[in-house]
Amino acid sequence: MSHDTGLILPAPERGSAVPVLRQLYLALRGAILAGRLPPGARLPATRALAAQLGLARNTVVAAYDQLLAEGFIEGRVGAGSFVSRDLPEAPELLPRRRDDASATVPPPAAPVPSAAPSKVLSAAEALAEGGVPEALAALPFNTGRTGWDGRSQRVWRALSIRRLAAPDPAMFGYGDPRGSRALREAIARYLRAARAVRCDPDQVMVTAGAQQAIDLVLRVLLAPGDPVWVEDPCYPALRGALAAAGARLVPVPVDTQGLDVAAGIAAAPAARLAYVTPSAQYPLGVVLSMARRLELLAWARRAEAWLIEDDYDSEFRYAGRPLASLQGIDEAGRVIYVGTFSKVLFPGLRLGYAVLPPALLGPVQAARLRSDWHPPAPAEGVVTDFLAEGHFAQHLRRMRLQYRTARDVLVAALREALPGRIAVEPPEQGLKLLARLGGEDDDVAVAAAAARRGVVARPVGPMYLAAPPLRALMLGFSGYEPAALRRAARGLAAAFGDRTGLHRS
Amino acid sequence: MSHDTGLILPAPERGSAVPVLRQLYLALRGAILAGRLPPGARLPATRALAAQLGLARNTVVAAYDQLLAEGFIEGRVGAGSFVSRDLPEAPELLPRRRDDASATVPPPAAPVPSAAPSKVLSAAEALAEGGVPEALAALPFNTGRTGWDGRSQRVWRALSIRRLAAPDPAMFGYGDPRGSRALREAIARYLRAARAVRCDPDQVMVTAGAQQAIDLVLRVLLAPGDPVWVEDPCYPALRGALAAAGARLVPVPVDTQGLDVAAGIAAAPAARLAYVTPSAQYPLGVVLSMARRLELLAWARRAEAWLIEDDYDSEFRYAGRPLASLQGIDEAGRVIYVGTFSKVLFPGLRLGYAVLPPALLGPVQAARLRSDWHPPAPAEGVVTDFLAEGHFAQHLRRMRLQYRTARDVLVAALREALPGRIAVEPPEQGLKLLARLGGEDDDVAVAAAAARRGVVARPVGPMYLAAPPLRALMLGFSGYEPAALRRAARGLAAAFGDRTGLHRS
Repeated sequence: MSHDTGLILPAPERGSAVPVLRQLYLALRGAILAGRLPPGARLPATRALAAQLGLARNTVVAAYDQLLAEGFIEGRVGAGSFVSRDLPEAPELLPRRRDDASATVPPPAAPVPSAAPSKVLSAAEALAEGGVPEALAALPFNTGRTGWDGRSQRVWRALSIRRLAAPDPAMFGYGDPRGSRALREAIARYLRAARAVRCDPDQVMVTAGAQQAIDLVLRVLLAPGDPVWVEDPCYPALRGALAAAGARLVPVPVDTQGLDVAAGIAAAPAARLAYVTPSAQYPLGVVLSMARRLELLAWARRAEAWLIEDDYDSEFRYAGRPLASLQGIDEAGRVIYVGTFSKVLFPGLRLGYAVLPPALLGPVQAARLRSDWHPPAPAEGVVTDFLAEGHFAQHLRRMRLQYRTARDVLVAALREALPGRIAVEPPEQGLKLLARLGGEDDDVAVAAAAARRGVVARPVGPMYLAAPPLRALMLGFSGYEPAALRRAARGLAAAFGDRTGLHRS
Repeated sequence: MSHDTGLILPAPERGSAVPVLRQLYLALRGAILAGRLPPGARLPATRALAAQLGLARNTVVAAYDQLLAEGFIEGRVGAGSFVSRDLPEAPELLPRRRDDASATVPPPAAPVPSAAPSKVLSAAEALAEGGVPEALAALPFNTGRTGWDGRSQRVWRALSIRRLAAPDPAMFGYGDPRGSRALREAIARYLRAARAVRCDPDQVMVTAGAQQAIDLVLRVLLAPGDPVWVEDPCYPALRGALAAAGARLVPVPVDTQGLDVAAGIAAAPAARLAYVTPSAQYPLGVVLSMARRLELLAWARRAEAWLIEDDYDSEFRYAGRPLASLQGIDEAGRVIYVGTFSKVLFPGLRLGYAVLPPALLGPVQAARLRSDWHPPAPAEGVVTDFLAEGHFAQHLRRMRLQYRTARDVLVAALREALPGRIAVEPPEQGLKLLARLGGEDDDVAVAAAAARRGVVARPVGPMYLAAPPLRALMLGFSGYEPAALRRAARGLAAAFGDRTGLHRS
């Protein structure tokens, strides 16, 4: 299978805005995606390629490292690198020019009467879609709380005051449904650099959190009865939104490589949409492997299905290299990339964004106009400055340290408080961890007992649709002091000690 | 028909939080609405009633004046006042206790396939639903611009800085889908006092402008194919939202008393919803008469239909007394009251509100959670302080003066620039006026010619659905300097002088 290829790469341009390392990485990745470097092909030795292209060997090693981390190549650098054999075959990856003009939104399927449209969902039911009683909302281990240190506070205040001194005249009229141009530019710059998202500011829509981005896309794309792949287990709020849209949920199992694409294809080859969390599957935290990413993209292209990539939490990585976004390797314009400032700034801001394939831009803008017109201008201005003036990167760095400490404190406290009763591993990314239960302990019952003690522990079992559920608790650690985390860990341990109803009935 | 009634009214309580005048007004209005004072009944002479209740005669005169202004009574004060004969007959108004527990949301009609669901609406089409080219958005006479003077700016800045110094811990987590309790309380207080809205803070939902309030309500209430009454002519953005919801639009004509309720009943007696602008019909500015209000409420009760009362612009009244809200005289809990801070503060804030009948509270909250979760916390805090500390009332007073001046400047400038060619009357309320065209001038053609000269003049003709259209231009005057208004009036006059395509083809 393995064979050497006469690979011809363009020499990276020096003095380009794109660093040489990145140019090389993209060229190699492009060759793999285009099938010019097929699965099993041997890559040139780093030393030889460096000499050929006139680069430092370290640069080539770094590019290979990134491809290795992302699953494009395998083998040991130095002993020979090969294009991963578990990538889909080349025909799946045939190069196809991204041709935006020809990409059109398929006509909607005829709406099918749905037995349970949005009208009958009660507030209680909706709140149960991952809700937490209000009295407990600010207590550990509720997820989605964020930290905000003195420095972030001072910077935010200073930027706000500067904006307040000279209000933007645009505030006194209505604006672009995508949000201000300046913020869209800042977001596009950030996403290109941090997540290898390929986007133009025109494709960015600033939304009221990721939730609105998803809602608008669902409104535009789905007719009642449309089949939609959802990860099993799945983010509860998404399930609620899909149920409200009258979609037919197709649960697709998640294994150690993430979403099982083949199982999805077997269950619903003509699904209209798939919702995925490739960076860290919600709730399990699994990273979608590169092989699966490519399978998923190939399916979406063939089936003319849409993919919502919810890239929540990807900003906080404590170890290893992040995989670049799914959107960044999509050649067919099928991926809607969704992110949020709720986790990286604070949830009360209600700002997130979507990067839309050009074919969806018009319809989603129209839906936004009907929904809430455009984002609030004052908050947009401050966030623009926060991003454009470098404070965001610094804030992320400091919060990453804070959250990593919180994570380690929590892991240690849980291991000490509940030895042998739960299994916890520090997650490499994100703001929460999974505590797997052993023996006969039931996650729903433990969560109820914990709530009675003022500890929020979200059971993972109910997030499953069809697959055999994992008995585990989702515990958020961001935004809490170490002492509060330790106290809550003891409270959780006490809940395990409560006699009543902890076991499966 | 006319007969004197042995009316027994409770003596107003002194020292109550409700002023004596208001107690008397409410008692009289209640007697009329309950049928104890039927149409044609003579009211006691003001002097006699004052003596009987131990009140100053001026108080009674003022209460009668308000009832007169609202159309509940007719006749000349002093010569005898009578309950209006054009009020619906008493059986329509039978008192029925507002019984929230028994009020339920009817099950949705089975969805009917719709020929033109949201998926196929292009952005261009949506923007055409009342849109204005971006380059012209900040130019007269675009509607929806607001003023903001030095004092408002200073107060807003000071309140914002105070909030920035001590960020609300709630910002770092997720909140109530209705918005903060403090802001809902401030809004409820304001609406009770200013618009006689009957509401508890629990019924208030803070939204991203009136647009989101309407959108959420439509999402909860409508299934595709549901008939909906719309005023003819109608607010274009509403038509777009209804079309996207797959509703069947039932155009109901508007005459000098506002919406012709009888025509609506004849056309679609079982409509699910009616959208109305009772304070000042959009775009014509007609006030919905008290008789029609009562007919509309009686129909909604009988048909179990819902009424969206869009009370836009009601804060700015230059002459006459405003009628209280439709919601305030609804005994059956059928009215959804919608308002916005876009006009009274600034549009870029994206804050509005709905007052929801208790039966809709749960479903609309659930829809809000799925849509964008909750409003942005920082803006909520500042608006809360602005309302609660009295700045809002002062801001409204100053803006009312500013806008009245702008209105008068524009009326004079138009009359001078286009004598005999257009007819303008200063509106008693709101931020825009109608200029009616005479002769052969066509509003769409004039608007296009004006746009070429950088003047925004929205044609009213396209806002009609079925009724013979009025040829008129809608001209906004708020948020522009007098000089800019005069200049734009001359520009508009010049557009009338342009030779090409001004007449109906």
